[in-house]
Amino acid sequence: MATAGKVIRCKAAVAWEPNKPLVMEEIEVAPPQANEVRIKIVATGVCHTDLYHLFEGMHKDGFPVVLGHEGAGIVESVGTGVTEFQPGDKVIPLFISQCRECRFCKSPKTNQCVKGWAADRYDVMALEETRLTCKGKKLLQFLGTSTFSEYTVLNQIAVAKIDPAAPLDKVCLLGCGVCTGFGAAVNTAKVEAGSTCAVFGLGAVGLAAVMGCKAAGAQRIIAVDINPEKFEKAKVFGATEFVNPKDHSRPISQVLAEMTDGGVDFSLECVGNVGVMRSALESCVKGWGVSVLVGWTDLQDFAARPIQLIAGRTWKGTLFGGFKGKDGVPEMVKAYLDKKVKLDEFITHNMTLDQVNDAVKLMKNGQWCLILSGDKVDLLERREHFQDPVLSCFQP
Amino acid sequence: MATAGKVIRCKAAVAWEPNKPLVMEEIEVAPPQANEVRIKIVATGVCHTDLYHLFEGMHKDGFPVVLGHEGAGIVESVGTGVTEFQPGDKVIPLFISQCRECRFCKSPKTNQCVKGWAADRYDVMALEETRLTCKGKKLLQFLGTSTFSEYTVLNQIAVAKIDPAAPLDKVCLLGCGVCTGFGAAVNTAKVEAGSTCAVFGLGAVGLAAVMGCKAAGAQRIIAVDINPEKFEKAKVFGATEFVNPKDHSRPISQVLAEMTDGGVDFSLECVGNVGVMRSALESCVKGWGVSVLVGWTDLQDFAARPIQLIAGRTWKGTLFGGFKGKDGVPEMVKAYLDKKVKLDEFITHNMTLDQVNDAVKLMKNGQWCLILSGDKVDLLERREHFQDPVLSCFQP
Repeated sequence: MATAGKVIRCKAAVAWEPNKPLVMEEIEVAPPQANEVRIKIVATGVCHTDLYHLFEGMHKDGFPVVLGHEGAGIVESVGTGVTEFQPGDKVIPLFISQCRECRFCKSPKTNQCVKGWAADRYDVMALEETRLTCKGKKLLQFLGTSTFSEYTVLNQIAVAKIDPAAPLDKVCLLGCGVCTGFGAAVNTAKVEAGSTCAVFGLGAVGLAAVMGCKAAGAQRIIAVDINPEKFEKAKVFGATEFVNPKDHSRPISQVLAEMTDGGVDFSLECVGNVGVMRSALESCVKGWGVSVLVGWTDLQDFAARPIQLIAGRTWKGTLFGGFKGKDGVPEMVKAYLDKKVKLDEFITHNMTLDQVNDAVKLMKNGQWCLILSGDKVDLLERREHFQDPVLSCFQP
Repeated sequence: MATAGKVIRCKAAVAWEPNKPLVMEEIEVAPPQANEVRIKIVATGVCHTDLYHLFEGMHKDGFPVVLGHEGAGIVESVGTGVTEFQPGDKVIPLFISQCRECRFCKSPKTNQCVKGWAADRYDVMALEETRLTCKGKKLLQFLGTSTFSEYTVLNQIAVAKIDPAAPLDKVCLLGCGVCTGFGAAVNTAKVEAGSTCAVFGLGAVGLAAVMGCKAAGAQRIIAVDINPEKFEKAKVFGATEFVNPKDHSRPISQVLAEMTDGGVDFSLECVGNVGVMRSALESCVKGWGVSVLVGWTDLQDFAARPIQLIAGRTWKGTLFGGFKGKDGVPEMVKAYLDKKVKLDEFITHNMTLDQVNDAVKLMKNGQWCLILSGDKVDLLERREHFQDPVLSCFQP
């Protein structure tokens, strides 16, 4: 392309400091260096993790930064040594890289590549040096991605090439939330055919977890949320029963135990609340129940009585649903194109990148999530919150 | 036998009330009823669980009781409907039954049979009605077993028939501690060949866990205890490295991470201390580390930061090492006879049943454990304690 090898000037939403509105700026995006890929971002979701960094993470040294990590785009140009990608390829940036060389990448047990982030800056950048600048200042790349920009640069180990037929304003959702929830059920919990599952919290991640349970062949999928308006949507994704803890005076674990002769086989906590984490574990049947932390908080410990595990339950957690990005994301895109995975149903509105602060405000106040594309933003129902406002955020 | 069908009068150590010495009494042991087996106890260990009930559990309705649950003996007579056992069979009483009929017994995933204990009295009796009386009062059967008695009665679902060649004063250890630790490594953690393991706490359970790690083919077995005198013994069971947390100012998880390039593959907490439980989890490598709660406490919650699981660690627990008793205990006895499992090395002293209070006192004060047999007691080094005195106790 004509821009190859040159600095690109483009629009981006810059977070200059914590707890302040993002500022639409013209930024400079440097050409990709060795092993790097420059991507024209076409669509991106707004995830709670972005807001977490902006409003709660409060790492002073994490600014100025370009947020956004749930995007999809087209390769504009590549640096030396890049053979996997060509200009024009459709891609999804990965906030967990897959170098294929480290012992974690070589193990089938995990997706947690060690090379993705700088060792001491897990929450900020994938590149050793950011490629984004504005007004003479370096802009950090949040989670190594920075999709709230028309262009960004990533190391090739953190980019997944996807089917050219994929609609970017839909499959961008596979860059974070949908893979996280779906994979939590399929890859981490390893939900079994005929099993009984409970999903706590029916934000996008929870809805995707419901979809994962269904894909794995679960017989009963009990959707739990304090907002009964979510149940209709959960039904679309495969939930078979619905429980609103507010309808019961007894602990939710007791309600579920009564519904399931002792507890569910698998439970997925898609909220990020330590109280719900405990409930989700206690809702599992003894002997073999598996509970997975999908929601995120680092503000508190999660806890339970030792007997909960001694009695045979297993407590796990998931990051990006256990998907190795380069392998898993293209497969999920294909599953969407083959109509085996739903994405459109998550989307309710569109907005433009210029409206990013409206999107952030909506999500912050109303707990919504949005898709920003070239000229539109799709508003997602992604209310991660089950009781307390804790955001879905990830770090290794 | 001449005693079949008759009440047997014999010696037993009766715990009349909490926090008081046991009293050697002549008790009556009723004949076994339908599906029951009366057993002449030949040898028994004293486990911390016994002391826990006596000194810490403090369930007022758990008395009077005959303690002891780590025994071995010979079938004296059987009730109607019992075809699996005959008088003269060598057996080990099981504090977790195996009915072979409930959904837990039918699952290969768990050993937690639901029929073993009365639903509302997990910690007291296996029989719906105790068969032991003294001075006109019913004596409860601790964990359904009561091996601090010359005779006891169990339902046949809670008895394992073992090889006639087995020395009862050794294999009694398989009734609780050694199976618990060994199985925690082999069955619950599923330690893999070539892996790196850490065992926290080198009491009998911890030493058995070390032995289990070795049997599973672990390459490195790091033994952790604040009493370096335990390291020599741990070496006998297969430990390859030794760490005394008191030798380090940094957290033990950091020490282990440095020794192992990021953490161990498997860690086993054999103490029953929630702080150690946390350390054991944090000592695991991200991505695939598995930590197992083997020690017991119900006095506090165990806890950690969510990132510990989100980063790919798994937290599990074990009860009786995951062994289904009727299947697993005879196999472990055979493994001992085939010299694949050590038992003799756990034993250091012998005492008689009459000396049970001396045994209890030694264990309580000096944190030792003892084997009582017909005329002797073997003193075990079973110091479960790693930091705080918390007993190894189990309930479903």
